[in-house]
Amino acid sequence: MTKPLILVTNDDGITAPGLRSLICFMKEIGTVVVVAPDSPQSGMGHAITLDNTLYSKKVIIDSENGVSEEYSCSGTPADCVKLGLQELLQRKPDICISGINHGSNASINVIYSGTMSAAIEAGIEGVPAIGFSLCDFSWEANFNIHKENIQKIVREALENGIPKGVVLNVNIPKLDAPKGIRVCRQAKANWKEKFDKRTSPMGKEYYWLTGEFELLDKGEDTDIWALNQGFITIVPTQFDLTAHHAIHAINNWNFND
Amino acid sequence: MTKPLILVTNDDGITAPGLRSLICFMKEIGTVVVVAPDSPQSGMGHAITLDNTLYSKKVIIDSENGVSEEYSCSGTPADCVKLGLQELLQRKPDICISGINHGSNASINVIYSGTMSAAIEAGIEGVPAIGFSLCDFSWEANFNIHKENIQKIVREALENGIPKGVVLNVNIPKLDAPKGIRVCRQAKANWKEKFDKRTSPMGKEYYWLTGEFELLDKGEDTDIWALNQGFITIVPTQFDLTAHHAIHAINNWNFND
Repeated sequence: MTKPLILVTNDDGITAPGLRSLICFMKEIGTVVVVAPDSPQSGMGHAITLDNTLYSKKVIIDSENGVSEEYSCSGTPADCVKLGLQELLQRKPDICISGINHGSNASINVIYSGTMSAAIEAGIEGVPAIGFSLCDFSWEANFNIHKENIQKIVREALENGIPKGVVLNVNIPKLDAPKGIRVCRQAKANWKEKFDKRTSPMGKEYYWLTGEFELLDKGEDTDIWALNQGFITIVPTQFDLTAHHAIHAINNWNFND
Repeated sequence: MTKPLILVTNDDGITAPGLRSLICFMKEIGTVVVVAPDSPQSGMGHAITLDNTLYSKKVIIDSENGVSEEYSCSGTPADCVKLGLQELLQRKPDICISGINHGSNASINVIYSGTMSAAIEAGIEGVPAIGFSLCDFSWEANFNIHKENIQKIVREALENGIPKGVVLNVNIPKLDAPKGIRVCRQAKANWKEKFDKRTSPMGKEYYWLTGEFELLDKGEDTDIWALNQGFITIVPTQFDLTAHHAIHAINNWNFND
């Protein structure tokens, strides 16, 4: 059996410890090609570069466990996946793995997440994909203790296949030993923004976006609930955004006056 | 009855003709406050500004039909909505209208769309929201011929309310007289990328992202089908991305070895 070809990317940039750990974990499963942003792209959502040029170059970052094929790219996470699939990889990869993100992408964070946008872009292009996030923003977070669980999820995905039109959003609690793995739905939530208004040395007013996560969901089948209970969560995530249940209601509106 | 308060935004920037037309249309329905990007933000998806400062200033762009309250913002469309709701508007608006985008946001384009990310951001924060797009990329497109249909949709949304957790993605075909309005689902499609590889005057290789829209859906209930038939399309769009139908399948994976 040939080894699976694994496209690895992220949104924290090609030198981020979460990505470097993920590369090591994935090398034990298959052949790894990395296409990742040359600078941090957190909060980029599903941005793509339309009105600007894209640069990409072959790089060697480290040679832990042997050098892998790596490309840095000036674009967003979604750009990296597009460029990887279309230009850089010799064949269609068997799976695309994005992460490990430094910080949670559970609940509504999936909407803003560059990590997940890379996975979703791969899914749109017909490549099975998983985004991994660790609920720990620290640059020095310990990713290695989660190696076994991450590898287990990737191996199961390769073996069983991910349902068509679906990518996986995996979040790992900040615990040395999570209790297990739970398949969940996305918890309803939003961010209660607070803008920190300041004045620059030049006298110009500006804002920093800050906010607090506000959970609007009491369900015990959500990712937030399971993370709080100590579980790793998997939310199957789709890019058909149609709210099928709402079609009937809107069909009753009166457009003929 | 007090006039509805309407937050108007877009992704093509505060001076874009599509936005200027939309402002005029919305002034006939309610009180308009504009918070829009100071530069084009097409393809920004749901990007937000996390690691950088945001500038915003009160501006007067034109005074057609009387001056409205307008703010330009250095951020993305989603930033504009956050800043508008949290800092700039005196009260929660009755509706947020984004657009009119210069170009289609039908089918998979919704994922990359800054226009729709603004509407989705408003929806997440509990404000009814609609994104409007005209399937005509021309800067000189004729928006005025679509005034009546756009106003009809906004008035129906204000009267009936948009179902919770749903925002509307409205696309208008490039026709002088669309045949009517259809509520649809998002057509399955992707972009077949082609990267145009060039060499800069300094000898550095770079890429332009180009591509062709590839329809993967033969359904006659999709937005692409209805647009091709000459209808204005409304896709109810949700930000709960959970693929509920896939939870069962993934629960059958073996995580316990």
